[in-house]
Amino acid sequence: MQYTAARVKEMYRQPESLVGKAVEVKGWIRGNRDQKEVAFLALNDGTFYSNIQVVAKDDLINYKDVTKLSLGSAITVRGIFQVSEGKGQAHDIVADEIVIESFSDLSNPIQNKRHTLEFLRTMPHMRVRTNTFMAVFRVRSLLAHAIHKFFQDRDFVYVHTPVITSADAEGAGEMFRITTLEPHESHRAKDGSYDWSDELLGTRAYLTVSGQLNVEPFCVPFRNVYTFGPTFRAENSQTNRHANEFWMIEPEIAFADLEADADLAEEMIKYIFRDVMEKAPEEMQFCNDWIDNGLIARLENVVNNEFARITYTEAISVLQKSGRDFEFKPDWGINLQTEHERFLAEEVFKKPVFVTDYPKDIKAFYMRLNDDGKTVRAMDLLVPGIGEIIGGSQREERMEMLLAGMASHGLNPADYEGYLDTRRFGSFPHAGFGLGFERALMYLTGMKNIRDVIPYPRTPKNVIF
Amino acid sequence: MQYTAARVKEMYRQPESLVGKAVEVKGWIRGNRDQKEVAFLALNDGTFYSNIQVVAKDDLINYKDVTKLSLGSAITVRGIFQVSEGKGQAHDIVADEIVIESFSDLSNPIQNKRHTLEFLRTMPHMRVRTNTFMAVFRVRSLLAHAIHKFFQDRDFVYVHTPVITSADAEGAGEMFRITTLEPHESHRAKDGSYDWSDELLGTRAYLTVSGQLNVEPFCVPFRNVYTFGPTFRAENSQTNRHANEFWMIEPEIAFADLEADADLAEEMIKYIFRDVMEKAPEEMQFCNDWIDNGLIARLENVVNNEFARITYTEAISVLQKSGRDFEFKPDWGINLQTEHERFLAEEVFKKPVFVTDYPKDIKAFYMRLNDDGKTVRAMDLLVPGIGEIIGGSQREERMEMLLAGMASHGLNPADYEGYLDTRRFGSFPHAGFGLGFERALMYLTGMKNIRDVIPYPRTPKNVIF
Repeated sequence: MQYTAARVKEMYRQPESLVGKAVEVKGWIRGNRDQKEVAFLALNDGTFYSNIQVVAKDDLINYKDVTKLSLGSAITVRGIFQVSEGKGQAHDIVADEIVIESFSDLSNPIQNKRHTLEFLRTMPHMRVRTNTFMAVFRVRSLLAHAIHKFFQDRDFVYVHTPVITSADAEGAGEMFRITTLEPHESHRAKDGSYDWSDELLGTRAYLTVSGQLNVEPFCVPFRNVYTFGPTFRAENSQTNRHANEFWMIEPEIAFADLEADADLAEEMIKYIFRDVMEKAPEEMQFCNDWIDNGLIARLENVVNNEFARITYTEAISVLQKSGRDFEFKPDWGINLQTEHERFLAEEVFKKPVFVTDYPKDIKAFYMRLNDDGKTVRAMDLLVPGIGEIIGGSQREERMEMLLAGMASHGLNPADYEGYLDTRRFGSFPHAGFGLGFERALMYLTGMKNIRDVIPYPRTPKNVIF
Repeated sequence: MQYTAARVKEMYRQPESLVGKAVEVKGWIRGNRDQKEVAFLALNDGTFYSNIQVVAKDDLINYKDVTKLSLGSAITVRGIFQVSEGKGQAHDIVADEIVIESFSDLSNPIQNKRHTLEFLRTMPHMRVRTNTFMAVFRVRSLLAHAIHKFFQDRDFVYVHTPVITSADAEGAGEMFRITTLEPHESHRAKDGSYDWSDELLGTRAYLTVSGQLNVEPFCVPFRNVYTFGPTFRAENSQTNRHANEFWMIEPEIAFADLEADADLAEEMIKYIFRDVMEKAPEEMQFCNDWIDNGLIARLENVVNNEFARITYTEAISVLQKSGRDFEFKPDWGINLQTEHERFLAEEVFKKPVFVTDYPKDIKAFYMRLNDDGKTVRAMDLLVPGIGEIIGGSQREERMEMLLAGMASHGLNPADYEGYLDTRRFGSFPHAGFGLGFERALMYLTGMKNIRDVIPYPRTPKNVIF
């Protein structure tokens, strides 16, 4: 008989086209129920979230071996795809032949039982075989692609900003230093400083904390640009939301003010969430059923509502009048804490809300000063269930104000010559924002720990493989 | 009058829909020809490679200022889009109003004259305003997206393999070390070794040289996966083809042999080149006219021909019989040199050619041993004009052969426990390859120096911004 290679994805999405056909499928065993004269194998071929059932009867010449197939074992099945005679599945494959590609060793740590997420974190190369991580990491892939599609469909130019940087500048966080020398090979001067000229790169160099200052100059000539790459923080924080290596998306748009920036952020969030929900309904349903029961309702609320907008000054007033007993007292001039952010998003607006126009002293030097002289054109997007997910601003395009901002933040303009060139040689209104990719992914999957949405997470004292 | 925001891209691609309309365009000056009573401005708005001509007549209230607009200055134009009355352009905009957003400082280093590529390398944030780099970096963005589209359309899962790694393992090249300590803070034992436990990450850690060993385990459960991210080599080579930071694409496919791997590589190369040529015909024409005259013909040859395939053993024989006086004598067991690779691609086959089944001693430990016991299922794709562009292999799925390969390469299996798990817990045939993103981009644009296809190149003693 002629068996045609077929994918489990089509067996679920267009089963009619395959019923009665002789098919060949290669994949991995995810379950094996042996009922003496027949074994029911749950087979996953990697093309679809769900498994297809393989009915193996005892007339197979290697039936005894088939009954021994344990989780992870790889097989090739040839048989007839049919409407299932059993319950629990719409279709199955009655096997004419099962070629055993390999038996998994029985010490396989991944078994059909509940493993704790903590246990699974010790084996990033194996945990992806569980239902949870199959869902999370396919969603991760689809989310990344949705982001590229969103920007590319709108003619944004993707700029690979560098990972290695010589700028210890922005003050956005602690940085990892990179070196080609052993510690004793670094030469120290009498004043305790080092001579970095022996380094391969000839200078003290770091891992980037943000691509923003590198991507901004590419607004000329491309108008709308974005960067999407790994960024690093050498911070010693063992929280659920911080990792030392994570990915960030940073668009920058020319001839745009803060309103246009917020419009773009809102459009992007809705597009990328909707796209993944459409592309991976099975994975999203799993996340809703097993990780976070309110997930899909909360996401629907995000993609179907206009986001609210409120100024920081108004927000402080709302918080003060709320009567809520916050741990940190809301007061004009403070940074909003997560408790404030969640209160605004979850209880006041009950949907995503942009808070704009923050006090200049708690925001970065490059944000555009408002006419009040006290606030800058900054925005944070707060979402129910998590708090801040996006931070952005309209940039200060006026040279003298930019220099004043640097001065008030204690920065030396000489360290920013390249950045200042973008104002010197044709300045223009522009704006941008940063989205932490993992934070968006946590929101989308309901996962509560950033270690569980990164294939190989890097956190303090933790670098597995 | 009502002016509608319009994009230069539509003025070139669908001009009919705009002729006679009152339009508003924001952009940057790329040329200014002042003819006393009228000034002709070349305006680029970032949406299209070509400029639109703005006709500014001396009845504009700020005409005198308009004549002073130098390169890089930003303006908003309101006027009528029309069929041009002049020569050299099909359409132009007759300005009713020009709002000057900013004058560029006249010290702008980017002027309408030929700058050397060496000079431009000293200012990565400014060179993107030249025709050459406008073309190169838009092509870079489109090429990156084409790669994602190719894999995602085929249901490959994108895996973000880590930049930070603890594995000093593969021997693929020198590695950068990352640290959170100043040199004097590293504690040295009597034997000269260091105690890395004071590091934030608690271990000696590096920047990755390849994502392959991290991505392979994700074949289960996803079958077909790829990684696309920055990789690093701490090599002190000042060649045109080496950078310390570059991006790499590494797909891995399950239930696949070397033939399927080569099929995938061929299909991918053709798809991504064709896609960019379709999406950016103006940029590609510029590259052909100004960077490399044979470019488009050479690319057409690549996308329209079946790639040739030859074994290494046959290739050596062809080289030996060629009568060519090579600098390095071709002899079974040696690595092919660039002169050999280019001879095969350019003179023997006159198109891309896969060379397969290399001697095991010159290839990596994880490649599948052939039955001859001497060669492994490796492949390199050689292309006319450049030589090797892709390297890949079928992986050794047989545990005992993999361990033998490690032994013969002097590697310690204890350093590869995670990798060996992929064979222990359900092994299966699989294969993959690596494509250097910048090498593909150089081939696609005709650029001869890798420093000129990376937004902010990192090479020895060179880290600008």
